[in-house]
Amino acid sequence: MKERDLIEQIRRLTGSGSADLLQGIGDDCAVIEKTAETVQLLTMDTLIESIHFDCSWHPPKKLGRKVVAVNVSDIAAMGGQPVFALLSLGLPADFDDQWLAGFSAGLTGACREYGCLLIGGDTVCSPDRRALTLTVIGEMKKEQVLYRHGARPGDTVWVSGPLGLAAAGLDLFRSGEMPDIPELQLLQEAHLDPHARVGLAVLLAQSGLVHAMMDLSDGLATDLSHLCEQSNVGARIMAERLPDYGKLTAAADFLQQDPIEWMISGGEDYELLFTADPADSKKLLKLITLCDYAIYPVGSIVEGKGVTLIRDPGEKGSDHEQNISYQGYDHFTVVGGASSRTP
Amino acid sequence: MKERDLIEQIRRLTGSGSADLLQGIGDDCAVIEKTAETVQLLTMDTLIESIHFDCSWHPPKKLGRKVVAVNVSDIAAMGGQPVFALLSLGLPADFDDQWLAGFSAGLTGACREYGCLLIGGDTVCSPDRRALTLTVIGEMKKEQVLYRHGARPGDTVWVSGPLGLAAAGLDLFRSGEMPDIPELQLLQEAHLDPHARVGLAVLLAQSGLVHAMMDLSDGLATDLSHLCEQSNVGARIMAERLPDYGKLTAAADFLQQDPIEWMISGGEDYELLFTADPADSKKLLKLITLCDYAIYPVGSIVEGKGVTLIRDPGEKGSDHEQNISYQGYDHFTVVGGASSRTP
Repeated sequence: MKERDLIEQIRRLTGSGSADLLQGIGDDCAVIEKTAETVQLLTMDTLIESIHFDCSWHPPKKLGRKVVAVNVSDIAAMGGQPVFALLSLGLPADFDDQWLAGFSAGLTGACREYGCLLIGGDTVCSPDRRALTLTVIGEMKKEQVLYRHGARPGDTVWVSGPLGLAAAGLDLFRSGEMPDIPELQLLQEAHLDPHARVGLAVLLAQSGLVHAMMDLSDGLATDLSHLCEQSNVGARIMAERLPDYGKLTAAADFLQQDPIEWMISGGEDYELLFTADPADSKKLLKLITLCDYAIYPVGSIVEGKGVTLIRDPGEKGSDHEQNISYQGYDHFTVVGGASSRTP
Repeated sequence: MKERDLIEQIRRLTGSGSADLLQGIGDDCAVIEKTAETVQLLTMDTLIESIHFDCSWHPPKKLGRKVVAVNVSDIAAMGGQPVFALLSLGLPADFDDQWLAGFSAGLTGACREYGCLLIGGDTVCSPDRRALTLTVIGEMKKEQVLYRHGARPGDTVWVSGPLGLAAAGLDLFRSGEMPDIPELQLLQEAHLDPHARVGLAVLLAQSGLVHAMMDLSDGLATDLSHLCEQSNVGARIMAERLPDYGKLTAAADFLQQDPIEWMISGGEDYELLFTADPADSKKLLKLITLCDYAIYPVGSIVEGKGVTLIRDPGEKGSDHEQNISYQGYDHFTVVGGASSRTP
């Protein structure tokens, strides 16, 4: 069973909505009404040792930061500001005090950085593997929430930064080589210590220019497929527009990999993916000058279904158009190549 | 390191409060302000396979119900009504579809029963062991929240039902014997399918008669120690007042165990533990006639520190008074006897 079938099976069993529930299972966060004007965003993400992280190369402080970042990224995905967090910490009975001190410092430091407060949770014995679950609660104005389902044919598809860096970094770790090359260390750092794009997300939500948004956690191919399915549209991505291709060249040479695979199927980018009217592109680019972020148009929304990658838009021919729908990371399917996580 | 030291270490690292935070780490739930009159209660509990449950005897439907009950019990512990839930479901890659169908049906059925709605979560691959984390959000009036820290010397200590049943039931399962005796099956059922005391909790919170409350999840000895420590008081418990001692007799004979051990150190009772002015005992007992619950006075709050068990209050002598502070279940300490969970 694939992950999305599993989620669908659970979703079908849940009861009908509550008056306060604006969005249940199926977006980056659940959305519930707080007051007449404000909503709460709720998200929960789990990292399991040797599936999502490997302590032999992941320093505890950076792992603590990452647990926060991957959850906060889901709040950013809808345009919200994180406020509170709860942690379930599963550790072996004979856990290492020093590891815990580093992890806790990273976690609470990242909470402070993103403006959210750790207010509770659970501690349990988890033999064999550490198991880390965070719930993050965010807040924002009700009218500004950016859902996955708002994309329209003709929209431009934007991403907020280079893709595939974390996937390439992970493959470098898994190769067992620790090359002393700054370009490669930057990729490894993208895997170890990702950053959630909260400031940009809030700006985009407030702008009123964005039709649909989500974060990139399972790779562009899978995440854009979700956005398209929920908006009842398709998408075409131009490979040559994917930003900062050059950052992957050294790693691609080193590992003899196709960098495009990392960019479309590699997970853990934690960049924002959003769509907007092409007539608003200039306004968006002007808005972005207010902050330290960048945004890149990488394709467009079309009528129909599925996500198509166009590798060489200059030449016509079916060989250059590839259906990449859902070709990213699936938690319950072993995926070959760059997109699989630590086995 | 003991569990409470671990929690204290994390608590010290968290930042200072937010204006909306009424209670952070240290009670059954975190409490945040929703409106001027209402609060949200937030709790999170994890069950790890072979630590908290064993699939060889735990039917998936009852396990799904239990994940909900143990979390909802934390909402009840403060007098609240559960409203929403998020589930993190960690399963092996080759998980059993039938097991999942049973588990999901139990979980969503229990959510409906308690009046809360599953609105989101995460699904991850967890090799070797299933890992189940639930976050539950509850609501109640701000002025009615029952914290652990309100107990006063002279208060009567009450519990809402028989203790030690689930611990005895677990020991029966662990003994490998499945006796066909209804009295013993009732104990096993207490372990498999506990019930959160939401209706009673709401009634108690609304009554204004209760000074401090929590739920019994780690055993009376440990949970009452938490309540006493946070209220800066001590407690004396009369063994002969612990209710329904008789329900444990058959199991105690069968397993050659002291039933008192199950009653004071056995976890997973999910009954309510609360304190109130002895002058209000009649009012409390009258209130309870409005619902299907029962409550039992089992001891009293005293000045000082620690929890003392008095096994035979008729005779004086130090042998009959036993300090039982924190002698319940600790998630990171191997506890001998009845209180340890599945190893």
